[in-house]
Amino acid sequence: MIRVAILHGSGYVGRELIQLILRHPHALLTAVTSRTYAHSPVYKAHPALRGQLDLCFTNVSEFDASDIDLIFVAAEHGKGAAAVKAILNGGYSGSIIDMSSDFRFKDISTFESLFKVNHPAPELVTDFSYGQPELFAPYSGKYIANPGCFATGMLLASWPLHLNCDQAHVAITAITGASGSGIRPKPTTHYPERDGNVRAYKVFKHQHLPEISQFIHEGITLSMVPVSGPWTRGIWGTLHISALENPSQIADWFKSIYDHHQLIRLWPDMLPELKYAVGSPYCDIGWIVRDGHIVIGFAIDNMLRGAASQAIQNMNIIMDLPVETGLLPSAT
Amino acid sequence: MIRVAILHGSGYVGRELIQLILRHPHALLTAVTSRTYAHSPVYKAHPALRGQLDLCFTNVSEFDASDIDLIFVAAEHGKGAAAVKAILNGGYSGSIIDMSSDFRFKDISTFESLFKVNHPAPELVTDFSYGQPELFAPYSGKYIANPGCFATGMLLASWPLHLNCDQAHVAITAITGASGSGIRPKPTTHYPERDGNVRAYKVFKHQHLPEISQFIHEGITLSMVPVSGPWTRGIWGTLHISALENPSQIADWFKSIYDHHQLIRLWPDMLPELKYAVGSPYCDIGWIVRDGHIVIGFAIDNMLRGAASQAIQNMNIIMDLPVETGLLPSAT
Amino acid sequence: MIRVAILHGSGYVGRELIQLILRHPHALLTAVTSRTYAHSPVYKAHPALRGQLDLCFTNVSEFDASDIDLIFVAAEHGKGAAAVKAILNGGYSGSIIDMSSDFRFKDISTFESLFKVNHPAPELVTDFSYGQPELFAPYSGKYIANPGCFATGMLLASWPLHLNCDQAHVAITAITGASGSGIRPKPTTHYPERDGNVRAYKVFKHQHLPEISQFIHEGITLSMVPVSGPWTRGIWGTLHISALENPSQIADWFKSIYDHHQLIRLWPDMLPELKYAVGSPYCDIGWIVRDGHIVIGFAIDNMLRGAASQAIQNMNIIMDLPVETGLLPSAT
Amino acid sequence: MIRVAILHGSGYVGRELIQLILRHPHALLTAVTSRTYAHSPVYKAHPALRGQLDLCFTNVSEFDASDIDLIFVAAEHGKGAAAVKAILNGGYSGSIIDMSSDFRFKDISTFESLFKVNHPAPELVTDFSYGQPELFAPYSGKYIANPGCFATGMLLASWPLHLNCDQAHVAITAITGASGSGIRPKPTTHYPERDGNVRAYKVFKHQHLPEISQFIHEGITLSMVPVSGPWTRGIWGTLHISALENPSQIADWFKSIYDHHQLIRLWPDMLPELKYAVGSPYCDIGWIVRDGHIVIGFAIDNMLRGAASQAIQNMNIIMDLPVETGLLPSAT
Repeated sequence: MIRVAILHGSGYVGRELIQLILRHPHALLTAVTSRTYAHSPVYKAHPALRGQLDLCFTNVSEFDASDIDLIFVAAEHGKGAAAVKAILNGGYSGSIIDMSSDFRFKDISTFESLFKVNHPAPELVTDFSYGQPELFAPYSGKYIANPGCFATGMLLASWPLHLNCDQAHVAITAITGASGSGIRPKPTTHYPERDGNVRAYKVFKHQHLPEISQFIHEGITLSMVPVSGPWTRGIWGTLHISALENPSQIADWFKSIYDHHQLIRLWPDMLPELKYAVGSPYCDIGWIVRDGHIVIGFAIDNMLRGAASQAIQNMNIIMDLPVETGLLPSAT
Repeated sequence: MIRVAILHGSGYVGRELIQLILRHPHALLTAVTSRTYAHSPVYKAHPALRGQLDLCFTNVSEFDASDIDLIFVAAEHGKGAAAVKAILNGGYSGSIIDMSSDFRFKDISTFESLFKVNHPAPELVTDFSYGQPELFAPYSGKYIANPGCFATGMLLASWPLHLNCDQAHVAITAITGASGSGIRPKPTTHYPERDGNVRAYKVFKHQHLPEISQFIHEGITLSMVPVSGPWTRGIWGTLHISALENPSQIADWFKSIYDHHQLIRLWPDMLPELKYAVGSPYCDIGWIVRDGHIVIGFAIDNMLRGAASQAIQNMNIIMDLPVETGLLPSAT
Repeated sequence: MIRVAILHGSGYVGRELIQLILRHPHALLTAVTSRTYAHSPVYKAHPALRGQLDLCFTNVSEFDASDIDLIFVAAEHGKGAAAVKAILNGGYSGSIIDMSSDFRFKDISTFESLFKVNHPAPELVTDFSYGQPELFAPYSGKYIANPGCFATGMLLASWPLHLNCDQAHVAITAITGASGSGIRPKPTTHYPERDGNVRAYKVFKHQHLPEISQFIHEGITLSMVPVSGPWTRGIWGTLHISALENPSQIADWFKSIYDHHQLIRLWPDMLPELKYAVGSPYCDIGWIVRDGHIVIGFAIDNMLRGAASQAIQNMNIIMDLPVETGLLPSAT
Repeated sequence: MIRVAILHGSGYVGRELIQLILRHPHALLTAVTSRTYAHSPVYKAHPALRGQLDLCFTNVSEFDASDIDLIFVAAEHGKGAAAVKAILNGGYSGSIIDMSSDFRFKDISTFESLFKVNHPAPELVTDFSYGQPELFAPYSGKYIANPGCFATGMLLASWPLHLNCDQAHVAITAITGASGSGIRPKPTTHYPERDGNVRAYKVFKHQHLPEISQFIHEGITLSMVPVSGPWTRGIWGTLHISALENPSQIADWFKSIYDHHQLIRLWPDMLPELKYAVGSPYCDIGWIVRDGHIVIGFAIDNMLRGAASQAIQNMNIIMDLPVETGLLPSAT
C-alpha cells in the first residue's frame, strides 16, 4: 500500500482526493491537514464522508511526513509552494503532487506577473514536472505540478494542432461550474447571482492560457474567453479553428494521439455533452468539420479530470501502477 | 406624485423597491442612499437597471429628507431602527416604511432576546403599525413595520384558524430561495453548497414565528421548520392541521376572509405551485382536506409579497391609493 | 387603443405577449386563440396570469378578426404561414406580426431545405418585412416576420462588421436556456438531462445562421455553435474575430450604430452578464480587444428581446408609437 | 462471482444498477435487456458509461436466463410483474429483485385500486418479501420487492414510533428531485416548468403511504404531502409529531434501532442536509425536539437508497455477503 497524505485537505480538491484515495486499491490515507479543522473528524469539513473514514484532521504544524510515500498539496495558489518548501525543509523524501499553480510555470517571471506575488520557492520550480499524464508521462522526477482545470481541457484539445500544423488560430470559449472557485463564498458564487446567469471573466487574460502556451509552438496562437455558468461541476469548451489546409485530417490526428489512452474518450463528428464527463475521470473530446471550419469541443469534471483524478493518474504513474488504477471500476 | 426615497438601497430589497417605484404611476423616486456606492449611478449596484434611471446613490450623511413624502428603510435587521431614529431626529415629518424586523415586535424583550441586541429605539416601537395590509389596514399612523417574508405567508395562511378555532396545532414546513439571505455571500448561499441541496435551519426557532404569534390567540399553537432550497426567489410552505372538528369548513373561512382581496389568490382543493407566485405581488393560498386532516399551502415571492411589493401596498394604503396601484397591469 | 389578438397563444411566446400587452398603455387584448384550451380561461394555460385578465381562449375556427388592428401569430414554425393565410383569406385587413420562421427567408428554397417542408404560402413572403427594429425600421408594409432569438443577438452583434469591414470571419458560440425549446417536453428539456448539463446541437447548421446571412455581405463569413444550457431564460453568446486591420475601431462602430437606440445597451471593454438582460427588452452588447483579437458578447432574454418584446417594438413602430412604449417603466 | 442480469435496463434505475454492479467486487453483469436499444452498446442509452463496459443490450425476447444467479427487474410499475412472470415461466430458478411497485403490496386489491390495473401475477405476490434491509432482513425467500423511494425514507424515519408508541399522528412533507419521475419527459419535468418551482402532487394520496402503512400499526396515523423540487437527485422530508408523552425518548429509540446499521446515519439534534446523502447509499435521519414537538428529517438519494443501492443491499443479503459490499469504499 502507498501511504498517502493530503496537506490542506479541507477544501473541495481535498474532499475529492479523499474520496478517490478511499476507493483506491493500493493507497492508504494516513493524514489530512487543516488549520481550521485541526483535531476534528474529517467529516466535520466534509459531512458527506461521514461513516467512511475515522481520520481526524492534523494540524499542519504537527504533521509528521516521515513514513509517507506521497503527499498531495491542496493549498490555494501562492501557498502550495510554501507548503512544499516546508515539508522538504522538514526532511521529507517522498513524492509530491502539488495541486496549485505554483510549480506549473517554468518561467518564474510569468508566474509572478500573473499572480502578482514573489514566488516563494523559485529554486524548486525546475524539480517539478508538468503533470499532463497523456502527453508528458513518464516524468523525470517525483515532483509533479498538477495541471489547471481549463488548462487540461484546452491542452488536450489543441495538441493535435500543435503536432500537425505550422500555423493556426484557436478561438476558445470555455465555461465552468462554481466549484472551480473553491470552497470560500464569493460574490460571483453567491447563489442569487450565479443561478441562471452566464458571466465572462479574465477575458483574454486567464492564467491557464499562458500555462498551456508553454507547451505549444508559436505558430499556434490561442485566445480564450473563460466563462462562469450556473452549475456546480464541470467545464465545457469550444475551440474554433479556421483556415487550415486540410481540416478533415483532424479526426486522424486525434485518433493517432489518444486512441490508446483509456481516460480520454473521443466523440467523432459531435461535441460531447458536459454531463457525460461530470463525476468521471475522463476528458471527453469531439469535433465537427464543415466548410473548412473546425470546432473542437471538450468536457471534463473540473474537480476530477481538472484536479483530483488527474492527480491520482499522476500518483499511479509515479508509483508504477496502471494509470487508471482506482479510477475506473474495471481498473483495480 | 408621491416623492419617495429609499435608505440603504444597494441590496436586493432596495433593487426590488426601485423597480416597483419606477413602474408606479403616482410615485417618484427622488433619492436612494448607500454608503458603499455613494455618488455612483444606481446601476453600478444594480446593473440590470442600467438605462432605466439616471439617479446616483446619495451618501446617507448627505441625504436631505426635507421634501420627501415617504421613506422606505431597507437596512439590515438591527440597523433599521437606528436609521429611522436618525431621520426623525433630523426633523423628517413624512411617512416611513421600515423593511427590517426592528419595529415588528411590540414586546421589546422578545426582539432583544431573538436578535441578541439592545433595541436602538424602543421608544418608537409603539408608533409603528405591523403592516399586514389585508389583515390590519387601515393603519393608525404613518409608520409601518413591513412584515417578514415567512411571516407573511404563515400569518395569511393560518388566519382562518385564529378567527374560527379555539384550539389547533399547526405544523409548518416552509422552504425559501437564496435571495432571502440578502446580497452578502454566505457559506449557505455558496453555489456549490446550495445547488441541489435542501437544508433546514433555525428549526423551531425562527424569528418569524414569534413575529406572527403576537397576533394569533394562544389556543392556536404553531411549530415551524424553515428550510433553504436551491432556487433564487420564492417561499413555498405547508401547514398541517389535524383534529379539527369540521375541517371542511376551512374553504368557507378562507373565502370569507380573502375573496375581496385582489392580491391574495385562493386555490381551493389544491396547493399552489411556487412559480405562479414568483415575480408577482400575490400571496397564493390553497388547501386540501382528507380524512379529517388539512394541509394548507402558500406561495409568495419573498422579495415582492415578502418584502417590496407588500411595502408598496402599504405605501398605497397610507397615501389613500387603491392598494394594488402600480402592482398589477390593470391597476394604474 | 390598439385592438390586438394573439393566434395560438397557449405557448410560452403567447404568455409573454399577453403579459406585455396587459402592461401596454395603448393596446387592448381582445382575443387569444388555442385549440387545446378553447373556451377555458387564459389562466388555465398560464396559471401565473390568474387574476390579471378575464379572457377565455377562443377556438381558432371561431376567431373573428373583423375589428382587430393587429394580430400576433405565435404558431410553431411551419404553422405560422398557414395561420396567416387563413386570416387573410378570411378578409382580415389589419397588421400582422408573425413569430415563426415562416416569413423570415426571402429565398423560399432556403426555407424549404432548412425546414424540410413545402412553404404553405410562398406568395406572401415578399409582403413581409424582416422585423429587426433597430436595423430595418421603418418597414415598407404592415406585415412583419419577427426575428429568431439567436438571430437577433447575432445580427445586432455582427452588424458593425458588415458595415465596416470587407472581410472577416466570425466564430460564434451561443448558449440558450430551455424556454427556447417551447412548451412541449422533449428529451433535451427533461430536467434530469438538462440540469447541470451543456450540450451543442445543430452545430454549423442552425437555421438562425442563414436567417441573418441574408443581410450580411459575403465577405463576412460566420460559423455558429448553438448550445443548450441549464437555465430557463436567456441567450448569451461570444463572437470571436481575428485578423482585422484596426480592431479597436469596433468601439466607435458600435457607438455610432446603437448609441441612440434605447433598447440596446452597450458595455464597452467588458462582456455583459446574462442576468442583466433576462426579464428585460434589452439587447446587451459588449466587446473586448486585445492583441489584435476581438471578442464580442451579447445577452438577451430569448422570450422577450428574442421574441415577444421585440414584437411589441414592431407593433409600436407599425402603430407610430415610440418604439419603447410599454417596454420600459419610463416609456408610457 | 454472482452472475447478474438487468431486465429493462435502459432507464435511470437501470443505469444506476449497472454502475453499482460494475463496481461490485463479487458481481458480474452478464446481460441488460431493452426493447428500444436491443443490440446497441449499453453506452448508447447511457453515454456516461462509455468506455466502462462492452456489453450490448439484449432484446427481451432473446434473453437467456439459464446461467444467471440474480435478476434485477427495472420495468415500470405495472410491467414488473409481467416481466417476472415471463422469466419464471421460462424456467428461471435464480433470485429476483423487482424494482417496481408490483410485489410490494400484500393486499392485491390495494394495489389494483392504487394503480387502476388488474394485477398481472397475483399468485406470485406472497412469494415476494418486502425488501427493507435494516428492518426485515433476513428474508424468507429469494424474491424481493424493492421498496419505493419515499417509502424507504418514511418507513425508516417513523419506525421508532411504530415500535414504541401506541398512538401518534405523523404529518409528512417530503420533496423529491426530478429523476424520481423516470427517463421519459413529462410536463412536470420540462425544464422551464421545474426550474425554480415547487409543486405538490398526489397530496394525501401517494401510493408510497399505503406501501408503508402495511407495516405500521393502526395507532400511528400518517398523512403525506409529496412535493416536486427543482433538482435532479434526492428526497428530503420532514415528519412532524406532536402530543407524545415523552418526546425526548426519540433519540434513544433511533439509536437502539439503527446504531449498528452502517448504511443509516443518525444526526441527533439536527436535520440532515440533502446533499450529504446524494450520491451515497445512506439513509440520513435526524431529529429535533422542542416544547413537546418533534420533527424528524430524512434524506436519501432516490436513485440509490431509494432504488439501486438498496437493491444491491438486498442482493448482498440474499447472497450472504456483508450488506455494504460494493457500496462503501471500505467494504469490498
